[in-house]
Amino acid sequence: MTITLGTNQYGKAENRVVRIYRDSARHEIRDVTVSTSLRGDFTAAHLEGDQARVLPTDTQKNTCYAYAKEKGLREIERYGLDLARHFVGDVSSVTGARVAVDELFWDRVEVGGQGHDHTWVRRGPEVRTTVVTVDETGERVVSGLRDLVLLKSTGSEFAGFLTDGYTTLAETHDRIMSTSLAATWRYSRTSFGDGDLDWDKVWGDVRRILLEQFALVHSKALQQTLWEMGRAALEAHPEIAELSLSAPNKHHFVVDLSPFGLENPNEVFHAADRPYGLIEATVTRS
Amino acid sequence: MTITLGTNQYGKAENRVVRIYRDSARHEIRDVTVSTSLRGDFTAAHLEGDQARVLPTDTQKNTCYAYAKEKGLREIERYGLDLARHFVGDVSSVTGARVAVDELFWDRVEVGGQGHDHTWVRRGPEVRTTVVTVDETGERVVSGLRDLVLLKSTGSEFAGFLTDGYTTLAETHDRIMSTSLAATWRYSRTSFGDGDLDWDKVWGDVRRILLEQFALVHSKALQQTLWEMGRAALEAHPEIAELSLSAPNKHHFVVDLSPFGLENPNEVFHAADRPYGLIEATVTRS
Amino acid sequence: MTITLGTNQYGKAENRVVRIYRDSARHEIRDVTVSTSLRGDFTAAHLEGDQARVLPTDTQKNTCYAYAKEKGLREIERYGLDLARHFVGDVSSVTGARVAVDELFWDRVEVGGQGHDHTWVRRGPEVRTTVVTVDETGERVVSGLRDLVLLKSTGSEFAGFLTDGYTTLAETHDRIMSTSLAATWRYSRTSFGDGDLDWDKVWGDVRRILLEQFALVHSKALQQTLWEMGRAALEAHPEIAELSLSAPNKHHFVVDLSPFGLENPNEVFHAADRPYGLIEATVTRS
Amino acid sequence: MTITLGTNQYGKAENRVVRIYRDSARHEIRDVTVSTSLRGDFTAAHLEGDQARVLPTDTQKNTCYAYAKEKGLREIERYGLDLARHFVGDVSSVTGARVAVDELFWDRVEVGGQGHDHTWVRRGPEVRTTVVTVDETGERVVSGLRDLVLLKSTGSEFAGFLTDGYTTLAETHDRIMSTSLAATWRYSRTSFGDGDLDWDKVWGDVRRILLEQFALVHSKALQQTLWEMGRAALEAHPEIAELSLSAPNKHHFVVDLSPFGLENPNEVFHAADRPYGLIEATVTRS
Repeated sequence: MTITLGTNQYGKAENRVVRIYRDSARHEIRDVTVSTSLRGDFTAAHLEGDQARVLPTDTQKNTCYAYAKEKGLREIERYGLDLARHFVGDVSSVTGARVAVDELFWDRVEVGGQGHDHTWVRRGPEVRTTVVTVDETGERVVSGLRDLVLLKSTGSEFAGFLTDGYTTLAETHDRIMSTSLAATWRYSRTSFGDGDLDWDKVWGDVRRILLEQFALVHSKALQQTLWEMGRAALEAHPEIAELSLSAPNKHHFVVDLSPFGLENPNEVFHAADRPYGLIEATVTRS
Repeated sequence: MTITLGTNQYGKAENRVVRIYRDSARHEIRDVTVSTSLRGDFTAAHLEGDQARVLPTDTQKNTCYAYAKEKGLREIERYGLDLARHFVGDVSSVTGARVAVDELFWDRVEVGGQGHDHTWVRRGPEVRTTVVTVDETGERVVSGLRDLVLLKSTGSEFAGFLTDGYTTLAETHDRIMSTSLAATWRYSRTSFGDGDLDWDKVWGDVRRILLEQFALVHSKALQQTLWEMGRAALEAHPEIAELSLSAPNKHHFVVDLSPFGLENPNEVFHAADRPYGLIEATVTRS
Repeated sequence: MTITLGTNQYGKAENRVVRIYRDSARHEIRDVTVSTSLRGDFTAAHLEGDQARVLPTDTQKNTCYAYAKEKGLREIERYGLDLARHFVGDVSSVTGARVAVDELFWDRVEVGGQGHDHTWVRRGPEVRTTVVTVDETGERVVSGLRDLVLLKSTGSEFAGFLTDGYTTLAETHDRIMSTSLAATWRYSRTSFGDGDLDWDKVWGDVRRILLEQFALVHSKALQQTLWEMGRAALEAHPEIAELSLSAPNKHHFVVDLSPFGLENPNEVFHAADRPYGLIEATVTRS
Repeated sequence: MTITLGTNQYGKAENRVVRIYRDSARHEIRDVTVSTSLRGDFTAAHLEGDQARVLPTDTQKNTCYAYAKEKGLREIERYGLDLARHFVGDVSSVTGARVAVDELFWDRVEVGGQGHDHTWVRRGPEVRTTVVTVDETGERVVSGLRDLVLLKSTGSEFAGFLTDGYTTLAETHDRIMSTSLAATWRYSRTSFGDGDLDWDKVWGDVRRILLEQFALVHSKALQQTLWEMGRAALEAHPEIAELSLSAPNKHHFVVDLSPFGLENPNEVFHAADRPYGLIEATVTRS
């Protein structure tokens, strides 16, 4: 009775690939999480640590990003077939490939009733919130929303910033800006009668304004966008005393495809998890 | 220099309250998570363990459910005000109350282009999936979706089941049925040419059929609903060889409001987290 | 070519069963999450909605709790075998059962260097924390810990509380008390020289005191336990100005086993997820 | 009544910094998640998009990594003070800094009863698992563990791998290797009598062997380490038929500190979330 290597596979899991199609001013977006898994005869890698037949998972990752440009990323089945066929067909030691693709959905932000060209809201579990406090000082209502994930595929820059000895960031005049917005706004009143406020209507209108401003402001920084969002909401709603926004800067990094002879004019991005920027601001009526 | 009790508060966090309005055949639904927090002079509770001024968090929970019926649950700000005013106004030891309410959104399922009366799909991060495998045996594509959260506020029963010495469940002829659907379907082909299949179109159509069947089948059990969903998809799509469904039974328990002198004809529910039923079935072409 | 039912199974997932052995003053604890899954000929349930051969998942859940008492819950493999054999052997329509058990580990809290009889700390990802703020007013350091999960299997009661029309809770003089502790403490200083404080030593000692007090205080309420924990830490550490505790009351409900002819003298519990009590208190030096 | 900017702050959240002290063969490790947040007069950034006073969050991130080398990372309070003082003292536009640090704990892996020099196990919610199946073919028990997070701070290389046109990875002969291990092993028997197996003892011994092999094998690849772990377990336990390991390669990237005039001889790492390698292998008895 001997001990032997049984089934085995390896790959790169959860590559976060975002593909923007920007052939016209009306962009398209595909947002996927791709996992690759390869099979073949990798006995030597296990028994002797010999990697000569092993295509590194790092290379598999590179291929996922490169193919989003080289072959395109539209229907996830097509993209998965392209990748799986490549690994089996072009890498001699690979006899089987499994490519799993999960797609997240983005809808166009509505601006004036029309879907915007390059601003997107993710289909997701957006939550409407309220915190009501009643005590000796009266009644206080703070309403809001969270988990509203937004993205602009252009119309955002970041330049002219302060630098010091720890700065390595380059300026950019066209980047993806994305955030998962949490907004809260406090109503001015300290007591509420029935029918004083149409809660549903105000909530829906503030949400609309926040989305529209995110789309319409040409952004020189997330701070500026947040300010314009808050300011517009307060201008339209005198019953609101102040509005606070908490906006993680969900970084999307342009992938360097030049080692593979490919240009990447802001088309293929890696969506990073951590760290993330975190911008917080309150707009207030004084 | 003495050591004293500073600020303190206590309450019941994350009560999962679901309210169905069923005054007509066209139901309405509100789905909220409520957290209460009370302030007052609770020094004796801390220093001496004397609870005489402490309204238990269990009672606060009961009040959240009872008020969903007694006062109603429509706009979350109104519901929050009702609860906070009650704790401060009616409980002598309470001087301040904070009530936080998060609302999740449900849309009506479209059936034949119309929003259904009592079947709902939660606005959420639904994911489109595919797993592509290429090996010596050819190409295999399994597409699907997951995190599609559905709920029927009537049209579901569960009765006539097997019983044994460990059975305590009562039969019911009208319950909430809810699930977070994961579906996968395997295409029959083992090699795919360009344009053989319109992936987006098939995906969208299968999704539509699954939703419509969930709405239209009067359910005697989740098993039956799953079967009808899968069968309809396979009948409409000969290119699919088999379809598998994994459906957690997300239990919604009718809350007993009789201790508070309230009737609860399937209007106020507690949405439980765990445990949950898990029903899995494959429908196949043979 | 016909459409037929393929493989299928159903069961109850993620039953949270906690078993205390209290045959002597030195308790033992087992904390598991159990999922059952049954196979058999359930065609009629799918095709016709006929449940006559279906043992409800609710009954499966009951069996998981009852068996923790009836057969015992020690080694999870033994417990799993007991359950699986029962479903296949005793339920005529079941031909296959799959029982998955996950066990979480609890260690005895050390009190004076000895493992305590009935107080437990869960092996987990406890986090040490600090928040340092530097501004015009000086330097402020708030250190702490979170995700420290504790449980007492006796030595906790809850009685004599305020009641109103929404109260249904019964008094208890012996219950499980469990929490996932988050503690933060602020140091009095507003500027820190090198070596002013042995940060590691203070942190370790405060943690030790919190754990020991949780074990030693006979609790009439979580509020009282928190107060005693905070007070002891401040008494021992004059360099700390105040200490705040946030303690979810992780409810463990005694399961009613009387329908199955079994007594349950605080031995078998259901560990609930939501809602949970949330008790917050600050102890301060004045 | 005018609308103005209220309180605001910004920073980089959740930098995953791992610091290895390797001054001697007996390494030390610190694993932290750092979030920075700066206050000052950033009105122009909000109102006009003028970033001249804004130190980018990317620079803040760089500083967190650089300081782990430049100032050291031992007690998190000291590290937090170093960072906060720097932002307030050295960046003219910053008047307040808040630095939050969470520390995760690693213990030395025990090898022959002694703590190993450079192999670590994270204090965490390790889970013991079993899946029991009973059907017409008999009884099958698969036991295991998961969420056992391991790390070697040296003794791991990766070189000599297959390259193609998508390869950019450099070879390395000294890297961090870390994984969150899931192991399952199937017992050979198909029926189990009482006392046939001492489940607790076998489980503990397999776990010990897996940990020791992870520590002792000089790794040329994760595949090789997994093989040696599985092989050793099967050699010691004839009652086990096969053992499967699923091991995400939790990447730790050496941070390039050369822009700041600092060397980084494998001392400061960024712990990445996604993507991750995923290596799966079964070792079997034939």
